[in-house]
Amino acid sequence: MTAVPAGAEYGYLGPAGTFTEAALLQVLPEDAVARPMPSVDAALAAVRSGDLAAAVVPIENSVEGGVSATLDALANGSALRVTREMLVPVTFVLAARAGTALADVRRVASHPHGWAQCRGWVGSHLPEAVYVPALSTAGAAEGLAVDPDAPYDAALCAPLAAQRFGLSVLATDVGDNAAAVTRFVLVQRPGAVAAPTGADKTSLVVFQRDDHPGGLLEMLEQFATRGINLSRIESRPTGESLGQYCFSIDCEGHIGEARVGEALMGLHRTCREVRWLGSYPRADAKAITVTVSTTDQAFGDAGDWLTRLRSGEA
Amino acid sequence: MTAVPAGAEYGYLGPAGTFTEAALLQVLPEDAVARPMPSVDAALAAVRSGDLAAAVVPIENSVEGGVSATLDALANGSALRVTREMLVPVTFVLAARAGTALADVRRVASHPHGWAQCRGWVGSHLPEAVYVPALSTAGAAEGLAVDPDAPYDAALCAPLAAQRFGLSVLATDVGDNAAAVTRFVLVQRPGAVAAPTGADKTSLVVFQRDDHPGGLLEMLEQFATRGINLSRIESRPTGESLGQYCFSIDCEGHIGEARVGEALMGLHRTCREVRWLGSYPRADAKAITVTVSTTDQAFGDAGDWLTRLRSGEA
Amino acid sequence: MTAVPAGAEYGYLGPAGTFTEAALLQVLPEDAVARPMPSVDAALAAVRSGDLAAAVVPIENSVEGGVSATLDALANGSALRVTREMLVPVTFVLAARAGTALADVRRVASHPHGWAQCRGWVGSHLPEAVYVPALSTAGAAEGLAVDPDAPYDAALCAPLAAQRFGLSVLATDVGDNAAAVTRFVLVQRPGAVAAPTGADKTSLVVFQRDDHPGGLLEMLEQFATRGINLSRIESRPTGESLGQYCFSIDCEGHIGEARVGEALMGLHRTCREVRWLGSYPRADAKAITVTVSTTDQAFGDAGDWLTRLRSGEA
Amino acid sequence: MTAVPAGAEYGYLGPAGTFTEAALLQVLPEDAVARPMPSVDAALAAVRSGDLAAAVVPIENSVEGGVSATLDALANGSALRVTREMLVPVTFVLAARAGTALADVRRVASHPHGWAQCRGWVGSHLPEAVYVPALSTAGAAEGLAVDPDAPYDAALCAPLAAQRFGLSVLATDVGDNAAAVTRFVLVQRPGAVAAPTGADKTSLVVFQRDDHPGGLLEMLEQFATRGINLSRIESRPTGESLGQYCFSIDCEGHIGEARVGEALMGLHRTCREVRWLGSYPRADAKAITVTVSTTDQAFGDAGDWLTRLRSGEA
Repeated sequence: MTAVPAGAEYGYLGPAGTFTEAALLQVLPEDAVARPMPSVDAALAAVRSGDLAAAVVPIENSVEGGVSATLDALANGSALRVTREMLVPVTFVLAARAGTALADVRRVASHPHGWAQCRGWVGSHLPEAVYVPALSTAGAAEGLAVDPDAPYDAALCAPLAAQRFGLSVLATDVGDNAAAVTRFVLVQRPGAVAAPTGADKTSLVVFQRDDHPGGLLEMLEQFATRGINLSRIESRPTGESLGQYCFSIDCEGHIGEARVGEALMGLHRTCREVRWLGSYPRADAKAITVTVSTTDQAFGDAGDWLTRLRSGEA
Repeated sequence: MTAVPAGAEYGYLGPAGTFTEAALLQVLPEDAVARPMPSVDAALAAVRSGDLAAAVVPIENSVEGGVSATLDALANGSALRVTREMLVPVTFVLAARAGTALADVRRVASHPHGWAQCRGWVGSHLPEAVYVPALSTAGAAEGLAVDPDAPYDAALCAPLAAQRFGLSVLATDVGDNAAAVTRFVLVQRPGAVAAPTGADKTSLVVFQRDDHPGGLLEMLEQFATRGINLSRIESRPTGESLGQYCFSIDCEGHIGEARVGEALMGLHRTCREVRWLGSYPRADAKAITVTVSTTDQAFGDAGDWLTRLRSGEA
Repeated sequence: MTAVPAGAEYGYLGPAGTFTEAALLQVLPEDAVARPMPSVDAALAAVRSGDLAAAVVPIENSVEGGVSATLDALANGSALRVTREMLVPVTFVLAARAGTALADVRRVASHPHGWAQCRGWVGSHLPEAVYVPALSTAGAAEGLAVDPDAPYDAALCAPLAAQRFGLSVLATDVGDNAAAVTRFVLVQRPGAVAAPTGADKTSLVVFQRDDHPGGLLEMLEQFATRGINLSRIESRPTGESLGQYCFSIDCEGHIGEARVGEALMGLHRTCREVRWLGSYPRADAKAITVTVSTTDQAFGDAGDWLTRLRSGEA
Repeated sequence: MTAVPAGAEYGYLGPAGTFTEAALLQVLPEDAVARPMPSVDAALAAVRSGDLAAAVVPIENSVEGGVSATLDALANGSALRVTREMLVPVTFVLAARAGTALADVRRVASHPHGWAQCRGWVGSHLPEAVYVPALSTAGAAEGLAVDPDAPYDAALCAPLAAQRFGLSVLATDVGDNAAAVTRFVLVQRPGAVAAPTGADKTSLVVFQRDDHPGGLLEMLEQFATRGINLSRIESRPTGESLGQYCFSIDCEGHIGEARVGEALMGLHRTCREVRWLGSYPRADAKAITVTVSTTDQAFGDAGDWLTRLRSGEA
């Protein structure tokens, strides 16, 4: 991530108190300012327009899968670059106004993902509770704090949100999956590309040229031939018609590395469109094992050899 | 679909007036009764328990992609079978109480998918409108009809819902994508398998044995080697940890056909788990082109030939 | 190999004293009789007609490669079966009539393969020697013994031939490659197939349906998809026109094993012709490692599972 | 082919009167001199040492397959380049001294390949004839002309040889396959590489890094990924031990083209050794169809795109 001027604004999917804010705090430069945004679309539009220097948005959840709004907003519109990824464990509490007892809870608000991730606990402890959808887990918490007429008694939210809005915590760790984690990305406008670190990830979106049988297989072979592992692949409808997909892909390696470069070139040649979303350090910092035949050295040697042959040397 | 006893209940993702009800009406047997269900999970649980003879749920939307709740509910729990698929065009209207003018609309309710599919129209015609999430497009409409305190002025819903709840239509065809269509499936308990029609589709969920590089490629080759095209593939998190996926797949053909049977066997041998979700007629009734080397005849001939050789004949 | 009646004749590529006779002696049943044959074609024709119970012919040489006459004779004409393979180390001596000194040798006879395998030694020790082609290494030796007018002074042959024809050995181990070995096969008419031993090899010839790009790749995938390794693949012209090949293949495993059976069926479906030449114990008796997903057990389980699903069970 | 100094010597596999001489005459520069050589090895050694400017040797026969001596001599030793290929139809006559009648013929001489290609005719017309191997078809003819003691009565040879040695022709077109053709190559020392013509072929030899399962498949994918068709593939033993092969390959395209260059680089990275034997115009001058995604233009565009992305442009 390049240096930012003092006062640069970093947006995030608000409101304050969400897991997204926690992700932003992992990477916010000292002099930069955090600004909550009402939606992923709004956050990324503000980066595109230059209103924000960068934005943090969720991209993948270990329970619910890819975040469609983010995947689609990155795949369409003017080019953006992912420059960092951050992992945040997802821990839920059941929060209510002071004085509310667990037995009083009839209606529970949360973001649909939050609700989905606490279904088991709610089924056991509040089997009669009605679900009230909210735009965010923090918004559900905030509603209890600021709106006396809020149509619910409790919120499923992050511990940080309960604390920030002065709510009392009726139960902790109410998420069904203790290992749940959400992956966030820092998104910026295109600019100078940071050098490879040896433990990088590359994100891209691939639109296939036509829907011919075996097309997905051929696309995956562009990676396999260069010894590149995929860490995520998701089909997303292009919206044109049922059955028209693009593929949102994360692979190991960095665009500055020869094997990734050649794979990208192969996709560019054979696909209708390839959108490179960025190459950035892996959040887990785990170094990538590169086979001896796909190191930059191996590509360099092969290129030198080819040049010699073409020039007529023995 | 097998014959059903008079009065058999067919569930659908309610409330009444949704696109799902429209889908159900395409296949509801004469003597059967339609019953709205509060959620996909509830509908499928009722099929599993025997409370419902069958249920109709949405599985894929041409704009928003796979319906996670359905994909996940089919992938987990006891076995269910998809026995039919139905396509319903997605057309939205903006509905309000009689006397409301477009200029009066401040807050608009809809299901998040409905909202997403009308974003463009709303941005142009109601740029200041605030979004109020609802559990369904029909629920948003119903709220206007039954709840004088509903915290919104208008609903984005199906034409059927506006009509059913006596609302006035402020604008028609407000969806951004005129070609939008949603695919629904009829789900039943396992039972006798209907014979192939020559224009069938097979749905399955594949859990890979481990996350080895090239695993997806190998899995796709089980189909390619038998000349079977995929019409949909979606990765879904298994929920175990970030980066653990299963694959929800639709392919051409019927489990009763030899090439599909052999591909399923190949997946069963090489994957951790394969869940067959059903083989059923394609909604578009388009016959599948089978190459000469993958017809049932070709498999039969090859099997006869092998038997002869093994028995010592020339 | 099945029991043979007393006096059954086993042919071999003669004359006596060749490496082929040595190979035959490894497998000749006690009561059977060895008969030298003038050519591979003649030997296999006599098996086809029933004149011989079996024949031993060379099929592959570690230096010169596949033996074309054998590969082509097995690929064409009525069906034959390879039932055994035998390995014989190839050791050459330079043999001459008694009284001939190395310095006297001007002309050296041998089979072209024998000559090719001693080129290095001859170049160093007899740089002026002229090569006289012979139909076999043993024939070259025999010529010295029986024909006073033989147009050469010495023969490159097997030690056995020098001994059998009473020649004196001027030099031993004159082959350029001490590790040279020739592989021979025992060929019979089709009959009962011996059971798998767990260390078997299968030989076949594949004629592709047409010469489409990627055809060879698709053919190899029939093996790879079932986890079967190839130990030899040779293209052979079909003789129709330049660039028309068939493929002579040895793979691991036995036709009685499920994975080999399914691969053969796959080839039968997708190729113009597949000729199974036999499944027989490996000469080196090395057991084959079968992955857990391609054992007979795995195929059996997958078949049972498929049967259950098709019958409507959960 | 570059210009040659007057008097430059072009070798060919002799003696005079062979099909090889006919091939040479297709490409011999006006001022160059033809020189017969005793063997393929000798011809190529003389090119390597500089004694010959070039040599013509047979490389592939539509009936007998690859010419082992040529394939092996090109695969080993210092680098050589194939700069042209020539096709010569293979037509045989039965030639004898004046006065010999067909009924008198007891012993027939020819090169083993010549004999093999006339087996059918000889079987029908001279069923009792004994075969006398000769080093070449022309040598068999010459023997009749110059050696009164030649141990045979007739030769199977090219029409040119019968004419040149003043023999009478007892029968024409005695080859079993009227469409038989032999492919010859012109071999030179490495030098400036001629530009692509759009109808080129590239020859190479590939030694795999180790004998791992699926290695051949991976190797072929280096071509397939770049849309390159193979026109010939032959396994040849490396001579190290039984089952160790290298692959002699002809593919479409020219080393100066991007897709061929990238495929060669891929092989160089992943194989133990790749020996490029040359890129030269196809004898049939048939232009190669290149898919839109593998033209030089497509590679150039992809490279430009990658450069832009790496430099930080949008």
